[in-house]
Amino acid sequence: MGEVRVIEIKESVFADNDREAAAIRERMSRQGTLFLNVMSSPGSGKTTFLTKLIPMLKGEMKIGEMDVDIKSSLDAVRVADATGVESMQIHNGGLCHIDADMTARALAEYSTEGLDLLILENIGNLVCPAEFDTGAHKNVVLFSVPEGDDKPLKYPLMFTVADLVLISKIDTLPVFDFDVEKAKERILRLNPDAQILLVSAKTGEGMDDVCDWIRTEKSRI
Amino acid sequence: MGEVRVIEIKESVFADNDREAAAIRERMSRQGTLFLNVMSSPGSGKTTFLTKLIPMLKGEMKIGEMDVDIKSSLDAVRVADATGVESMQIHNGGLCHIDADMTARALAEYSTEGLDLLILENIGNLVCPAEFDTGAHKNVVLFSVPEGDDKPLKYPLMFTVADLVLISKIDTLPVFDFDVEKAKERILRLNPDAQILLVSAKTGEGMDDVCDWIRTEKSRI
Repeated sequence: MGEVRVIEIKESVFADNDREAAAIRERMSRQGTLFLNVMSSPGSGKTTFLTKLIPMLKGEMKIGEMDVDIKSSLDAVRVADATGVESMQIHNGGLCHIDADMTARALAEYSTEGLDLLILENIGNLVCPAEFDTGAHKNVVLFSVPEGDDKPLKYPLMFTVADLVLISKIDTLPVFDFDVEKAKERILRLNPDAQILLVSAKTGEGMDDVCDWIRTEKSRI
Repeated sequence: MGEVRVIEIKESVFADNDREAAAIRERMSRQGTLFLNVMSSPGSGKTTFLTKLIPMLKGEMKIGEMDVDIKSSLDAVRVADATGVESMQIHNGGLCHIDADMTARALAEYSTEGLDLLILENIGNLVCPAEFDTGAHKNVVLFSVPEGDDKPLKYPLMFTVADLVLISKIDTLPVFDFDVEKAKERILRLNPDAQILLVSAKTGEGMDDVCDWIRTEKSRI
């Protein structure tokens, strides 16, 4: 079982989010830590996805995880229990996002030196988190089949800032009216550079492709 | 096919949200319009639910609908097309919520005189909309099975402000690990007065109970 620490972060003190984010990114690059910001709607399966992904990479990478929630620590505990990695729960006091300064304050309490991969599980929300650069190298957006293929049309900024979009819970495609090709088209119209992968944390489908994407991005920092 | 109008509302000018909300509620009560604020995560099925609910009540009530989105008009068009009611699309300029002043400004452009029921489909988000009284008589929260039964623990304010929680997409219960009893317990621990109903807009299960709840609330204003 991994460790979970909890930090309460209520409000930002720095106004210059982009400068703060760039400083975090530079520090992470310097120490060789690929930093990923994982975003999605509530209930799209971020935590389950991470509990499956981390064990697939643990043998080759030292991994840390930070989890943002309003006040529960459920997700950090789930990740730590399932994967054995050290996990930090950030309580953001009811805000709908985390910004670079809040990330920096969490990082001040969490030793990332020596990590190959640091994953931030952002708060479940398709609006606010997209507006704040957290200092991560890449933004990963989970977009689950039950949510419907119209979500890129309705939450365009989230899909515009995504580097990797994971169409998730694809094991449930037979149950829902979800047109994968339409979903892909809608994402690529907003963001022609987005990578799109189809995954199911439940069946494991597509998870190897995510690991390959992470290895490639790690080699590039 | 119903009509859809679009209004762009960018920021609030009144600070006193609660006073503004009370004024809206009083006006709606005076004119005999039950005003419902429907909230949920993105993709939990609010629009589909409304396209099924409204036709069940249209014969006995005059109904209006207002839909909030960042910039698309998809939902208002879907509701108007499927139900024939007049629907207004409110574009909130990228905010994660709608407050009482924004609602009042939308109402200034939308004639609600003579309506028995006015439904506001809020923006898909489990955090921000819970913080703002819109002036509705009752808050209805959709909570869909694919999102997982832990959502009340993670987004407590939303379930605390709910008058009616609809556990939705119950036709998908066989596909997901969702414990209905646990979900109910978690909601009631936060909010012992919450009504909870199980529904599937797809199969129609539970929809009659929602109509009955609306009839009762209408008789109380």
